[in-house]
Amino acid sequence: MKKRESFLLKGHICYSNEQGKLLVKPDSYAVCREGICQGVFKEIPEAFADLPIRDTGDCLVIPGLTDLHTHAPQYPFRGLGMDLELLDWLNIHTFPEEARYKDAEYAQRAYAMYVEDLKQSAVTRAVIFATLHVEATEILMDLLESSGLETYVGKVNMDRNGGTELQEESAQTSARETRRWLKEIEGSYIHTRPILTPRFIPSCSDSLMKELKKIQEEYHLPLQSHLSENPQEVAWVKELCPNAASYSDAYFQAGLFGGSEPAIMAHCIWVDDEEIALMKQQGIYVAHCPQSNANLASGIAPIRKFLEKGVRVGLGSDMAAGSTPSILRAMADAVQCSKLRWRYVDPVAKPLTFAEVFYMGTLGGGSFFGKVGSFLPGYAFDALILDDSSLRQPRRLELLERLERFIYLGDDRNIAGKYINGVPVF
Amino acid sequence: MKKRESFLLKGHICYSNEQGKLLVKPDSYAVCREGICQGVFKEIPEAFADLPIRDTGDCLVIPGLTDLHTHAPQYPFRGLGMDLELLDWLNIHTFPEEARYKDAEYAQRAYAMYVEDLKQSAVTRAVIFATLHVEATEILMDLLESSGLETYVGKVNMDRNGGTELQEESAQTSARETRRWLKEIEGSYIHTRPILTPRFIPSCSDSLMKELKKIQEEYHLPLQSHLSENPQEVAWVKELCPNAASYSDAYFQAGLFGGSEPAIMAHCIWVDDEEIALMKQQGIYVAHCPQSNANLASGIAPIRKFLEKGVRVGLGSDMAAGSTPSILRAMADAVQCSKLRWRYVDPVAKPLTFAEVFYMGTLGGGSFFGKVGSFLPGYAFDALILDDSSLRQPRRLELLERLERFIYLGDDRNIAGKYINGVPVF
Repeated sequence: MKKRESFLLKGHICYSNEQGKLLVKPDSYAVCREGICQGVFKEIPEAFADLPIRDTGDCLVIPGLTDLHTHAPQYPFRGLGMDLELLDWLNIHTFPEEARYKDAEYAQRAYAMYVEDLKQSAVTRAVIFATLHVEATEILMDLLESSGLETYVGKVNMDRNGGTELQEESAQTSARETRRWLKEIEGSYIHTRPILTPRFIPSCSDSLMKELKKIQEEYHLPLQSHLSENPQEVAWVKELCPNAASYSDAYFQAGLFGGSEPAIMAHCIWVDDEEIALMKQQGIYVAHCPQSNANLASGIAPIRKFLEKGVRVGLGSDMAAGSTPSILRAMADAVQCSKLRWRYVDPVAKPLTFAEVFYMGTLGGGSFFGKVGSFLPGYAFDALILDDSSLRQPRRLELLERLERFIYLGDDRNIAGKYINGVPVF
Repeated sequence: MKKRESFLLKGHICYSNEQGKLLVKPDSYAVCREGICQGVFKEIPEAFADLPIRDTGDCLVIPGLTDLHTHAPQYPFRGLGMDLELLDWLNIHTFPEEARYKDAEYAQRAYAMYVEDLKQSAVTRAVIFATLHVEATEILMDLLESSGLETYVGKVNMDRNGGTELQEESAQTSARETRRWLKEIEGSYIHTRPILTPRFIPSCSDSLMKELKKIQEEYHLPLQSHLSENPQEVAWVKELCPNAASYSDAYFQAGLFGGSEPAIMAHCIWVDDEEIALMKQQGIYVAHCPQSNANLASGIAPIRKFLEKGVRVGLGSDMAAGSTPSILRAMADAVQCSKLRWRYVDPVAKPLTFAEVFYMGTLGGGSFFGKVGSFLPGYAFDALILDDSSLRQPRRLELLERLERFIYLGDDRNIAGKYINGVPVF
């Protein structure tokens, strides 16, 4: 394990402390002591006077970004098959590609590329779907562990509707494989944690959900899944679960909808008010994936409503339905899509602001990992150093303008440095 | 003037020959003779056997891209002010920034940055709004002429509703300045052409439109403007032009809606069926600017309908309402937005396909310049060499897959070469 250092990071420091609020501290010091942020100061406090200073010059310094929903095995077909809707896209592209990961050699090769790209990106933490294959999932976890990134990784469970190539034989097989996986990785990692991952209701029989509930109670694992991405999918769930009041209720009845163990639900586009109330009650984290939702013609999630009702929202790339792993791009997309929703679906729901999506990409998703996503005292010292000097400008911009512009125009070339828990990733 | 060379460009050559059709010619030769394409061949024809071969290796070769609508003076605030709708955004950001261009020194500095960025991008041809300032417009044209790009540039006309800082004194002043501009640039450029540019109806009095009609008859200039971007704007035009049947009709009544001189109309989101019929009849080029239309919450243009009715459609970045000048990005955005329109506005209008938006970004917009945007024989030899090797991949992709992926993931780093009229730009 790399040493968690102590230092003062000097720069123009921008971060959220609550939803919709953006603090901008020009020429200030973010204090890192053994990986934990001690706050941001204009002048160096006496107590930290002996710490070394790392001066980022005219760079912007922001908290690391969290990708709350992504699929590592889908990296090879990012940007492809974009002329399809969800269920066809799953059957034509996703399931055949994921089936390749039964081959450990392929998994090693593909996952190595994925992890290297993720390391170079603005993402510091991610919650990741692997495939149903235990060996491949462990290969991914090994690679992630050495990358310096903080992640949750899920071996996927699916015992129905995956076709012959991508489906576990039975609920029992799926549960047995999950237990084998959890046993094999026990104690292996510091930065890479397991998360229960029923793919979505159409992939998981009632028996499998029961098995997963048992495993959750035994291991106290959080859970990630998909919820209400596409109207056809919602109708299908209704058929599959005639006794559930809603898609959300199908998870809730299985005891796998948040509550004592946190759960991330990706998408949440077609949820009704009762579901939203249940989501709030159960402390669900919504992984909002605007690019994916446009690419698959799924729709635009009612994020303004979630914020008003106090539902937690973070951002997800949902690669490969989202073509890019960039959470900067997800911020911009979230703003754009909310404007189209306002225009065409709900004129009462004001579009999302830059400050709101910035929160989602930092604190909103980061909080799934604990005290993460801000430079408030006590938070993990995850930081990005943004060098926007290549985004040329004939006149001086305010810091807040530089930051807003960055989410539209910045890319991995502009990431001059990245810290996770105070450890430099590059 | 640089020499128009003759050579064979070897590579994987992809281009459109008609709307919705995409030809893929692996390991083939695109023949350039003195700047004009002679076609694409699998084997070198006898007649071209003595031309030098430029081998692009495993690169993709596509026609150059045309940006059919962009605002050069808005470059300094790209990615900013994205929490506003059109009319507020114009008054708070656009008009004050454009007013700066009365200062020639500022214009020189800002336009130099813009033109350099455009040169490095995938755009080979562009139709550009300058500002109302004659000197600044000439500075922009000088810079563009030396860049190697092929462009139309318009000195903007506006004699009302621009505020004190950005408005010409009267229709006569505006017309006089336009004539001065056209006189001063006469014979100065080969690659940079003037285009009449009434900003939009709310900026141009009836008298000004009459003056512009006279100038058009005298100089035989094409025209660019904006049409039906935002519902409030449409309502405003109704008030301003009580005798016009529609926004389109306001231009038509002025004799400035295509016909004998081609016209580009940006946006065209809120047009009705009669307007679409008029657009078709008058040969209007629609500049579809999906990113801008999302950023300003304007809406999503009915592009499927335009295609069905035979209206010409190209793509525009509409910087700075569109944050990026990339027409690759515009292709991806056009597909995504058409999916959201299908989902929320018009379930009958099928989403745009990759092949359709590829056509729009190449031949669709290119045809405004004549025989441009394809590798058909007789077309201007505008070509991009795309090196996608940095977009890593664990398995072999088909050429069409590589091309589709490129519009989602490629950026200026991946442009390995660019030709315009057979002349290498870099």
